[in-house]
Amino acid sequence: MKWRVYLSGEIHTDWREQIAQGCAERNLPITLLGPVTDHAASDAAGDGLVATDGGFWRDQQSARVNQIRTRTLIEKSDLVVVRFGEQYRQWNAAFDAGLCAALGKPYITLHDESLVHPLKEVDAAAQAWAQTPQQVVQLLAYTCSSACAD
Amino acid sequence: MKWRVYLSGEIHTDWREQIAQGCAERNLPITLLGPVTDHAASDAAGDGLVATDGGFWRDQQSARVNQIRTRTLIEKSDLVVVRFGEQYRQWNAAFDAGLCAALGKPYITLHDESLVHPLKEVDAAAQAWAQTPQQVVQLLAYTCSSACAD
Amino acid sequence: MKWRVYLSGEIHTDWREQIAQGCAERNLPITLLGPVTDHAASDAAGDGLVATDGGFWRDQQSARVNQIRTRTLIEKSDLVVVRFGEQYRQWNAAFDAGLCAALGKPYITLHDESLVHPLKEVDAAAQAWAQTPQQVVQLLAYTCSSACAD
Amino acid sequence: MKWRVYLSGEIHTDWREQIAQGCAERNLPITLLGPVTDHAASDAAGDGLVATDGGFWRDQQSARVNQIRTRTLIEKSDLVVVRFGEQYRQWNAAFDAGLCAALGKPYITLHDESLVHPLKEVDAAAQAWAQTPQQVVQLLAYTCSSACAD
Amino acid sequence: MKWRVYLSGEIHTDWREQIAQGCAERNLPITLLGPVTDHAASDAAGDGLVATDGGFWRDQQSARVNQIRTRTLIEKSDLVVVRFGEQYRQWNAAFDAGLCAALGKPYITLHDESLVHPLKEVDAAAQAWAQTPQQVVQLLAYTCSSACAD
Amino acid sequence: MKWRVYLSGEIHTDWREQIAQGCAERNLPITLLGPVTDHAASDAAGDGLVATDGGFWRDQQSARVNQIRTRTLIEKSDLVVVRFGEQYRQWNAAFDAGLCAALGKPYITLHDESLVHPLKEVDAAAQAWAQTPQQVVQLLAYTCSSACAD
Amino acid sequence: MKWRVYLSGEIHTDWREQIAQGCAERNLPITLLGPVTDHAASDAAGDGLVATDGGFWRDQQSARVNQIRTRTLIEKSDLVVVRFGEQYRQWNAAFDAGLCAALGKPYITLHDESLVHPLKEVDAAAQAWAQTPQQVVQLLAYTCSSACAD
Amino acid sequence: MKWRVYLSGEIHTDWREQIAQGCAERNLPITLLGPVTDHAASDAAGDGLVATDGGFWRDQQSARVNQIRTRTLIEKSDLVVVRFGEQYRQWNAAFDAGLCAALGKPYITLHDESLVHPLKEVDAAAQAWAQTPQQVVQLLAYTCSSACAD
Repeated sequence: MKWRVYLSGEIHTDWREQIAQGCAERNLPITLLGPVTDHAASDAAGDGLVATDGGFWRDQQSARVNQIRTRTLIEKSDLVVVRFGEQYRQWNAAFDAGLCAALGKPYITLHDESLVHPLKEVDAAAQAWAQTPQQVVQLLAYTCSSACAD
Repeated sequence: MKWRVYLSGEIHTDWREQIAQGCAERNLPITLLGPVTDHAASDAAGDGLVATDGGFWRDQQSARVNQIRTRTLIEKSDLVVVRFGEQYRQWNAAFDAGLCAALGKPYITLHDESLVHPLKEVDAAAQAWAQTPQQVVQLLAYTCSSACAD
Repeated sequence: MKWRVYLSGEIHTDWREQIAQGCAERNLPITLLGPVTDHAASDAAGDGLVATDGGFWRDQQSARVNQIRTRTLIEKSDLVVVRFGEQYRQWNAAFDAGLCAALGKPYITLHDESLVHPLKEVDAAAQAWAQTPQQVVQLLAYTCSSACAD
Repeated sequence: MKWRVYLSGEIHTDWREQIAQGCAERNLPITLLGPVTDHAASDAAGDGLVATDGGFWRDQQSARVNQIRTRTLIEKSDLVVVRFGEQYRQWNAAFDAGLCAALGKPYITLHDESLVHPLKEVDAAAQAWAQTPQQVVQLLAYTCSSACAD
Repeated sequence: MKWRVYLSGEIHTDWREQIAQGCAERNLPITLLGPVTDHAASDAAGDGLVATDGGFWRDQQSARVNQIRTRTLIEKSDLVVVRFGEQYRQWNAAFDAGLCAALGKPYITLHDESLVHPLKEVDAAAQAWAQTPQQVVQLLAYTCSSACAD
Repeated sequence: MKWRVYLSGEIHTDWREQIAQGCAERNLPITLLGPVTDHAASDAAGDGLVATDGGFWRDQQSARVNQIRTRTLIEKSDLVVVRFGEQYRQWNAAFDAGLCAALGKPYITLHDESLVHPLKEVDAAAQAWAQTPQQVVQLLAYTCSSACAD
Repeated sequence: MKWRVYLSGEIHTDWREQIAQGCAERNLPITLLGPVTDHAASDAAGDGLVATDGGFWRDQQSARVNQIRTRTLIEKSDLVVVRFGEQYRQWNAAFDAGLCAALGKPYITLHDESLVHPLKEVDAAAQAWAQTPQQVVQLLAYTCSSACAD
Repeated sequence: MKWRVYLSGEIHTDWREQIAQGCAERNLPITLLGPVTDHAASDAAGDGLVATDGGFWRDQQSARVNQIRTRTLIEKSDLVVVRFGEQYRQWNAAFDAGLCAALGKPYITLHDESLVHPLKEVDAAAQAWAQTPQQVVQLLAYTCSSACAD
């Protein structure tokens, strides 16, 4: 049985690659999914549709296009990892966590200790708080360990 | 991971074929689904059952038979495209959009600019409004692009 | 036990008033709900928010504001009546019918015989097709008749 | 028919009081709900339970206690307003918006224009974006206006 | 706290009246609901709509009208009693039981011992099998007894 | 795309075999599922568990064991066919239809014209009424016809 | 706005009365609900139905009768308190907690510290762990405090 | 069609191995799933995350990690077997049964006769009570027997 894991959050560091590498090294039965990580492409996702003056409407159009992917992949996933870095508002990541909570979709948060207090509500509904990608890999390995026949 | 996309709407032009061609050219991991596009066969779907005098009961019988396919394929799909052409009432297409909205199934509308005002409610619940099949293909290509490992 | 009935559809004739009158005459335990019926106000519902150039974005903004009311009142209702007149595209009405179908919310259609064929899918998922407001009142009276103690 | 509206977000300004005042002035049939707004009390919500060393576990305990109220009131509400101010991370507000989106609960965002880009995903799933409490009141007045008999 | 109990099943004996009497005697906080019990009116529920030749279409039309009431009242109820008498096919009663089972709506069956074997599937998903209306009243009295403050 | 079709109802004639044959002849992409059709084995499904005196408790035990299969296969199916023959009470078949109706699972009824009136409620929630297995095969062939790419 | 709180668990001590008293003293807007607390009556709930030899079938019959009340009151409640004492297996209490977890119904556990390890799974899905009825009352008072207008 | 069966409950005896052996001997189309059965590893599941002093917070952290697996595998399963042995509190097993009941997931209990009375609520919502692993295998064999084509 393969597990689908969606990696939500900041697209500015290589945290997804680190997790992918860890999963590959341990040969885990996991499919990793995520958003489009090319920041410019993501912001421009709706640019081919209705012409706008940039600003609010341009962002609305692109965000709604991106939602097709995000919502679908989250729903198809068994587990979600939500990453918060030090920079950026990252309200979309907290929003994804809220989606998971309401859908009863288990998620793990990945962030530094300095963000514990502002992330208390997001962490409170999570199944675990990890501080490094390696801890995430450890949790994934534990979760889909072979006590489950496939 | 393959995506299932249901193409709802008018069965009088070749818009489905255009999308299929675009998906094939780009080698997208997409399965396209749709209603029975033979108009006469669709209207006659229930004719082999209870004899009617044509009219309301004949239409009811056939429409209910067609619903087996429509509702099932929409539910099995990840994304729906709802096409509105200039002709015909197309209330069944707007009805399909309402189904999607209530099911939380993301959909994209495909129609000409001249229909913007009468379609405002349908577009408001959509994830995007495209004006050409090529734009639809672009959205599909973006949505299932390779930042998702399979 | 009071019944809530949402009246969806065209806002250009007095069909809602006719139903209200019929319900009042029969002293039915029914609360009638509906959209904002002032057409200009409805189209302008979002005008106080983000400035637009009219057109698509203005319609999107207003339609999304109107959806707060429509979706909420439909969900709070026990039964919905969807009216189709001869004029106008009325895609929002067919859309409301689709919402009802997916939500398992029973609905009745109200339209002239001339629209039977184009409305076959919408009627197929309806509990009844009425041709006059008086027939609707009759169905409401029958449905909430006193064999139900309150 | 009374409407329940949950006011989510920062508890550092008087935006809730402004909305309450506006609703009262217009005599709107609205019940306003919200989180505990005493910041210290909110952070200490779980302090009477298991002793902690402060930090992560203290925050977890309190956040989980606060969730009883938040989740319940959001589910009992017909509409949610999510406020974002300039200060603070406000990840709990974005989280609440995600909850609403997954629950199909309509929500309105309230924030300054400077936050449009980082809030694009949250706004994309919202029914409207307001910039002032007065605009919110206007939307509430429109939404529950008397075209709905009670 | 008042309980709503829907009484489904044959409309040829006075079993509903017996239960109503028992509930009244014990002053139970129960609202009893049921279908239209006038057999002719029930079969004719749709006669005012589309003219038919009697037979299948007439029955379809009336049955769909009756469903508005049945489905709504069952969903609004806390508990359902499904009565099976010796006569008649009573497939609508078994159908109601199936509705309840899928909705997670608790129900009690009321029938004679001679029907135990053919009703085994219906009884298997029920919370109890009663043989007399008095037993039903006893179960209702027990279920809503005063250990629940209101 | 393969379709799963559950065949519910009487296990005394060869109607399932007729449908299977028709599907095979037309090479339909359909998996047929059904209950255990060995009547004695079905009634004895729970006999290996708690000893009973036969009668009600024996039937309860077996029926609850059979429900594991029935409920699971119905939920995994895309479409259900519910067969009613002339003999037997067949309340379990009507019960299955009720399950389908509440789950929004489309179903087709298969029965003789003589049963139209007592089956009106069951037929009213069905997508079609067929009188012969061959008509059922025709509906299945139409429903999964090749206008859907796989 | 009144809160409904269901008190699940052992019926051998006066913990419910303590909570009721605390709620009354603080004048909380809370309705307390619970199971039938007369142990003998609870075990005998089904005795008036099918005669049994005591043992498994007697217990099954009574437990299924009790479930009508338990499941309904839990579903109607906003919050559940699950109490575990030192004695008795109390598997029904842990079962109720599982119901709540799957329903997304928030619950609080009430038990002594000595039971922390065996209750870790039940506590992990709870919103809080209280050790005394007074702590429970404190949580209730905090949760429905007046920052919510009614 | 393969069946997924989750084996919940005590991890101190070889009951899972017995069932696995029985399924293998009969060549059943069944995938068996279960929790991590290494008791120490299970209790330590969260130890790599936040440092704790052991006790409540350590148990909370590990239990929440284990829940990722448990909840996901239960939801992915078609049927669950819940085992209760003589030793240990086993509240997590009763909790799993409650999850299943609310999710409408069929389950079978496996326990000795001596536990009938304290398990009456858990058994009442089960589809069957087995006393030995061999009886469980028999039920599995019956349930997925070849009357279902794949």
